[in-house]
Amino acid sequence: MQLYGQDITSRLLLGTAQYPSPSVLNAAIKSSASEIITVSLRRETAEGTGAGFWDQLRTLNCRILPNTAGCHSVQEAVTTAHMARELFDTPWIKLEVIGHSDTLQPDVFALVEAARVLSDDGFQVFPYTTDDLVVGEKLLEAGCEVLMPWGAPIGSGQGLRNPDALCAMRAHFPDVPLIVDAGIGRPSDATQAMELGMDAVLLNTAVAKAGDPAGMARAIALAIEAGREGYLADPMERRDMAVPSTPVLGLAALS
Amino acid sequence: MQLYGQDITSRLLLGTAQYPSPSVLNAAIKSSASEIITVSLRRETAEGTGAGFWDQLRTLNCRILPNTAGCHSVQEAVTTAHMARELFDTPWIKLEVIGHSDTLQPDVFALVEAARVLSDDGFQVFPYTTDDLVVGEKLLEAGCEVLMPWGAPIGSGQGLRNPDALCAMRAHFPDVPLIVDAGIGRPSDATQAMELGMDAVLLNTAVAKAGDPAGMARAIALAIEAGREGYLADPMERRDMAVPSTPVLGLAALS
Amino acid sequence: MQLYGQDITSRLLLGTAQYPSPSVLNAAIKSSASEIITVSLRRETAEGTGAGFWDQLRTLNCRILPNTAGCHSVQEAVTTAHMARELFDTPWIKLEVIGHSDTLQPDVFALVEAARVLSDDGFQVFPYTTDDLVVGEKLLEAGCEVLMPWGAPIGSGQGLRNPDALCAMRAHFPDVPLIVDAGIGRPSDATQAMELGMDAVLLNTAVAKAGDPAGMARAIALAIEAGREGYLADPMERRDMAVPSTPVLGLAALS
Amino acid sequence: MQLYGQDITSRLLLGTAQYPSPSVLNAAIKSSASEIITVSLRRETAEGTGAGFWDQLRTLNCRILPNTAGCHSVQEAVTTAHMARELFDTPWIKLEVIGHSDTLQPDVFALVEAARVLSDDGFQVFPYTTDDLVVGEKLLEAGCEVLMPWGAPIGSGQGLRNPDALCAMRAHFPDVPLIVDAGIGRPSDATQAMELGMDAVLLNTAVAKAGDPAGMARAIALAIEAGREGYLADPMERRDMAVPSTPVLGLAALS
Repeated sequence: MQLYGQDITSRLLLGTAQYPSPSVLNAAIKSSASEIITVSLRRETAEGTGAGFWDQLRTLNCRILPNTAGCHSVQEAVTTAHMARELFDTPWIKLEVIGHSDTLQPDVFALVEAARVLSDDGFQVFPYTTDDLVVGEKLLEAGCEVLMPWGAPIGSGQGLRNPDALCAMRAHFPDVPLIVDAGIGRPSDATQAMELGMDAVLLNTAVAKAGDPAGMARAIALAIEAGREGYLADPMERRDMAVPSTPVLGLAALS
Repeated sequence: MQLYGQDITSRLLLGTAQYPSPSVLNAAIKSSASEIITVSLRRETAEGTGAGFWDQLRTLNCRILPNTAGCHSVQEAVTTAHMARELFDTPWIKLEVIGHSDTLQPDVFALVEAARVLSDDGFQVFPYTTDDLVVGEKLLEAGCEVLMPWGAPIGSGQGLRNPDALCAMRAHFPDVPLIVDAGIGRPSDATQAMELGMDAVLLNTAVAKAGDPAGMARAIALAIEAGREGYLADPMERRDMAVPSTPVLGLAALS
Repeated sequence: MQLYGQDITSRLLLGTAQYPSPSVLNAAIKSSASEIITVSLRRETAEGTGAGFWDQLRTLNCRILPNTAGCHSVQEAVTTAHMARELFDTPWIKLEVIGHSDTLQPDVFALVEAARVLSDDGFQVFPYTTDDLVVGEKLLEAGCEVLMPWGAPIGSGQGLRNPDALCAMRAHFPDVPLIVDAGIGRPSDATQAMELGMDAVLLNTAVAKAGDPAGMARAIALAIEAGREGYLADPMERRDMAVPSTPVLGLAALS
Repeated sequence: MQLYGQDITSRLLLGTAQYPSPSVLNAAIKSSASEIITVSLRRETAEGTGAGFWDQLRTLNCRILPNTAGCHSVQEAVTTAHMARELFDTPWIKLEVIGHSDTLQPDVFALVEAARVLSDDGFQVFPYTTDDLVVGEKLLEAGCEVLMPWGAPIGSGQGLRNPDALCAMRAHFPDVPLIVDAGIGRPSDATQAMELGMDAVLLNTAVAKAGDPAGMARAIALAIEAGREGYLADPMERRDMAVPSTPVLGLAALS
C-alpha cells in the first residue's frame, strides 16, 4: 500500500489517546506492529505533558500522523495543521473538522475547504470524512490522495453502520486508498472492513479501552490481515439454498 | 483446547470435500495449519477412489475426524461410524444425522439417539447439532463432551444466522468445548464466532469454493486467531452515544 | 385463516398476563380486535383471583386459548391441559413445555411427546416450538395442525432472531398455519413476520409492557394487516444497484 | 403534521412514476389515501404526454409536489423548479440534485446551494438529502422547513441502511418534519421508519413495481399508521435476558 508515495506494510493505523498509561500505550503500539500512529496536537502541546509524550513516541520508530482532533472550523484546523507540521516535521496531517459534538461527525463543508487550503499549502491530507461519494470526489479534487470514511461515530465501537456505502466507495474509487477511520469496536469489524476492499483501518478506542490493550492490538492486527487475505482469495458466494458440502452422490474421483 | 483429552492448538477444523484437485486440498490444509481434518466415509469408500485419497491424507500428519455425512437415520449413522472406526482406527466420529435434505439441518431426535448408542459403544462423538440449548443438554447426557452447533445451513456461507443463540449456549455450557460447524462463509464470520466465545470453527465450503483455497485457508486461520485473542482481551462496550477518542478537555488551549 | 376448522379473521392472538390492571387489559383486547386470547391456567386458578378474572374475560366474546405456561415436564403439561379443558370447556390448548428457565425455550423432546399424548386424547394442540423444521414435522405427525415457532425468547422483545429459519418453515409447510409466538417487541417485527408469510402472530409482553397498551395493541393489529397485505401484493425485488424511480430518458407515454 | 403551514393527515407521500398504466396509478393513489403526490417535471413536459397525465392527476384531489428528478446541477434544478411553479401553480418543490448516477445520491453541496437560491425566491423546498446532520443544519439555515433524508438508494428497496443515523437526526432536529425519501421496499421498512420517529415516508418504486400496486399502496399506508401509533405508544425495552410473560411466581400451585 502506498500513501502519498510512501510504502506502508501494516494496514493498521493506531491512535494514541485514552490509554491507561504510557507503558500500556507503548506495549499496544508494539503489539499492533503499526507503522503509523496518530497524535493529537492538543494533547502534545498540553502544558507539562507534551515533551515527555513526544520523546516516548519517538522511540517507537513509527511515522507520526498528527491530527486536528477537536477542531470545529476551517481556521482552527488550518492553524493546528501548521503547528503540527512545525512540531512534527511532516507534511502529513489527519484532517478532522468536527461538525457535531455528540456524534463527532465531520462537517463535510468545512472539511473540503480546509483540505483545499492545506493541499494548496503543501500538506498531504488524510481527511476523516463520511461515506458520502460526492464528498469523496470533492476531497480528491481538493488535492487529497487518500480518503478516510467513518464506520460509525468516533468512540462508539459500533462497527460498520453502513457497509453498502463503503462498498459503493470502493467501486467508485478503485484506485484511491480507503482507510476506515472511527467506529471499529472489535476484531470482526476490522475483518469485515477489509473484506469490503478497504485498504486499511485506523482506530484508537477499541484498543485503548479494551481490558488488555496490547492483546487487543494484536487481535486487530491479525483481523486486518485475515480480512485482507480473505478479500484477495475471492470468497464463495453466499447461497440462500443450502447445498451439501460433501458430495456423496456420484462421488467424483480425487485420485 | 482439549477435545476428549487431546490437546489441540489450532482452533480451525477443516473439511476435505469439494476441492478442485488433491493438490489444492493439500495446499489448503497446510496453509490452514489445521490439526484436525474431517473425512466423509462415503467418499473414502467410493469405489476406486478411497485408497489414494487416504494415502494422501496420511501424509499430512493431521488427526482424522471421520464423519457420517449423508446419513439420515440412526441405523445408517451407527453403521457408518463403525466402518469409520475400523478404517481410520480412531474412536472419534463427527456425527451427522441429516433431517432435511435442503437445509441439511440435523434431525435432533435421531442425533441424540445415535449419540447415545455410539457413546455407549466407546465412540468419542462430535455431534453436528443446532443451536438449541435443550438438545445440547441431551447430547451431553448421552455422553458427548463436545458440541458442534451450526452457524447456518451447510454450504450456504451465510455466516452466523443467530448469534444470540450461540451466546446463550456459551453462557449455559461454560465448560464444554463449542465448535461452530457449518455456515461460515468468510473470515469475518469466523472472527465473530470466536468473539462470541466459541472454542473453534469447523468449515469446508468456504475454503474449498474460494477462488484461492490456500489463501482463504490462511485468512480464516488468522481470523480465528484474531477472534480468540479479541475475546480474551475483553473488548470495549459498544456505545450508543459517541464520545471523543481524543481527550481535549483539561488540556491547555492551543498556544 | 382456519385453525382446527374454525374461521378466524384477526391474525393477532393476544396474551393476558402482565397488564397493569384489568381495565387496561380490557382496553387492549378491544383495541387489538383479537378473536383469540391466551390464558395461563396457573393465573386462572390462583387463589382469590381466578373467578373475577375469568368473568372479565367472558365478557369479551373472544375464544379462549388456555396455555400451559410454566410447565416443565410432559406430565405437568398434560395435567394442566386437562384442568384447562374442564375449566374453559374447549379442546384448544397452547402447549408450552419449557426447557430452559432463562430463555424459556421449548423442550422439543417433551413438547413432541406431550403433543402426542394430548392429541390422542382429543385435544387440539397449538404447540409453542422453535424454528426447527424437523421438530415441526414431528409435531405434525403427533397430530398438531398448527405450528407456533418462536421469534425470540419469551418477553425479550428482540423481534425475529432468525428470519431465514422462519422462511424455511414457510417453504417446507406451505399448508400448515404458522403463528409466530414469542419475541415480538414492536409493530415492525410483526409486519416482518407477516411479510415472511406467517399466518398470524401471538404476543403478550409487547402490548402489556408498552407505555400505552391499548395504543400498542391497535398499532400491532395494523402492523399485522400491513404485513399480510404486503405479502399478498408481491413486493418488489431488493436491488443492489440503484435505479432511477423516475424514468426521464425516453419517457414512455402514460396517456 | 404540518408541512410549510399546511395540515396534512396522511403520512404517506407517493411518487407517480413507473406504473404499468394510468389506471393502475389511479388505483394505487386512491388505495394509499395519500394527500401529496410527487410529479417529475420532465415527465410532465415530455412531448405529447404531459397534458393527459396532468389532467388525470387533477382529478385525484391531491396536493402536487413537483420534483426536480434527473437534475444534476444547481442551475438545472433551479430552472426546473421555476417551470414547475408556473405549471403547477405551487410554491412547493421537491429538490433533487443528483450527485452520482448509479446510487442517485444527492450532491449535498449543490443541494444546499440550490435550496438557498430557491428559498430566497419564495419556494417552499422539500430537499431530498442524505442522513448527514451537518447537511441538515445547512439546509435549515438555507430556509428549508422540512428534511427528507434517504433510507437507501432510490429504487433499491433496501429499506433503512443506517437507522442509527436517522435516530440521530430525530434527536438533533426534534421539531423539524423528517420524511424518509427513497429506499423503502416493503411495509416493514416503512413501519420501522415511523418507529424511529420519522414524520412521514415518501416512496414510489415499492408501490409501482409491486405485483399488485394498489394492494401494496394500502399495505404501506397501514404500515405507516402502525409505526406511528407504535412510536406514540412507547414500546417496551428490548431485553437481552428473557423473562416470563406469565407471572407464575407468587401464585398458588396447581390445586
